[in-house]
Amino acid sequence: MFAMMKELPLSKVYQFIEPGPVVLLTTQVPGTKPNVMTMSWLMMLEFEPPLIACVVAEGNYSFAALQKQHKCVIAVPPANLAKIVTDIGNCTGGDTDKFGSFDLTPLPASQVEAPLIGEAIVNLECRVKDSQMVKAYNLFVLECVKAWETPKLKDAPMLHHHGYGHFSVDGERIHIKSKMR
Amino acid sequence: MFAMMKELPLSKVYQFIEPGPVVLLTTQVPGTKPNVMTMSWLMMLEFEPPLIACVVAEGNYSFAALQKQHKCVIAVPPANLAKIVTDIGNCTGGDTDKFGSFDLTPLPASQVEAPLIGEAIVNLECRVKDSQMVKAYNLFVLECVKAWETPKLKDAPMLHHHGYGHFSVDGERIHIKSKMR
Repeated sequence: MFAMMKELPLSKVYQFIEPGPVVLLTTQVPGTKPNVMTMSWLMMLEFEPPLIACVVAEGNYSFAALQKQHKCVIAVPPANLAKIVTDIGNCTGGDTDKFGSFDLTPLPASQVEAPLIGEAIVNLECRVKDSQMVKAYNLFVLECVKAWETPKLKDAPMLHHHGYGHFSVDGERIHIKSKMR
Repeated sequence: MFAMMKELPLSKVYQFIEPGPVVLLTTQVPGTKPNVMTMSWLMMLEFEPPLIACVVAEGNYSFAALQKQHKCVIAVPPANLAKIVTDIGNCTGGDTDKFGSFDLTPLPASQVEAPLIGEAIVNLECRVKDSQMVKAYNLFVLECVKAWETPKLKDAPMLHHHGYGHFSVDGERIHIKSKMR
């Protein structure tokens, strides 16, 4: 089941990527089923407009879709989706209908063809802004053009991947007075 | 107080960066005091040799040191250093002797001039491998050439920054059988 989403100001996007969560990346090539992959190699590059760097290995089904469509959605899953997140990482969109198999709810995005994920904490609609580093590092620079949050999941713990299915789940939240953005 | 370190195989470096921790970056320009900054925008680019992409804003004191020396250390602090990590992010090496002010222990590295941090979970000695994206994104590609872990802190929780001094601290660890590296 998924909860209602509302628009997230682009100036707040970094607050959901900077903590280093495992994310899901969705893509959609017209005429085919949408695909989703698990991704942990990403970071913020700029606050606003939000730029995000991510590595998508050339062997991935999503690599071709990104190269072709230049559009995707980054969805941050809550920690209770750990099993689904891991299982998605263990198969390929080449032979699996991942949305059909894994009980995620694809929802229409507003700016891109790739679907939002109904169960995610936030969904970031992105366009490929710079492919210059794809050849050397499989690194795409994405610009987030529209963002959605699920208020009900605002404080849901995220997942952080330590390799081979070992995750840490967000625990305590602390606040120390800071000028850091 | 700091505990004993031992060498960490380079093949395991990603296990400490992929989870998305806040890190400390140390630099050392010969003839000056070592400096340290707080950094949250970094990610893995390659498993082995380990390549790490990071953003160091041009205004930072560390930016000039990196541009000049091409060497640094990335140290992953345990969550109990949250106050120090935040305070370091709130001042500049231009007018503060950060190691002197913040009660961190600088230790000699083996391959670079920048110091290790005695209190860190891991310390990664790095060389700048690629500066091509500095102009567009302040993005440096680093190669980790030597890595150290502090066995006593192996399972210490890391910090994840959500903006303005709001952190989540690693809580529960879970393991789901996975082929994902």
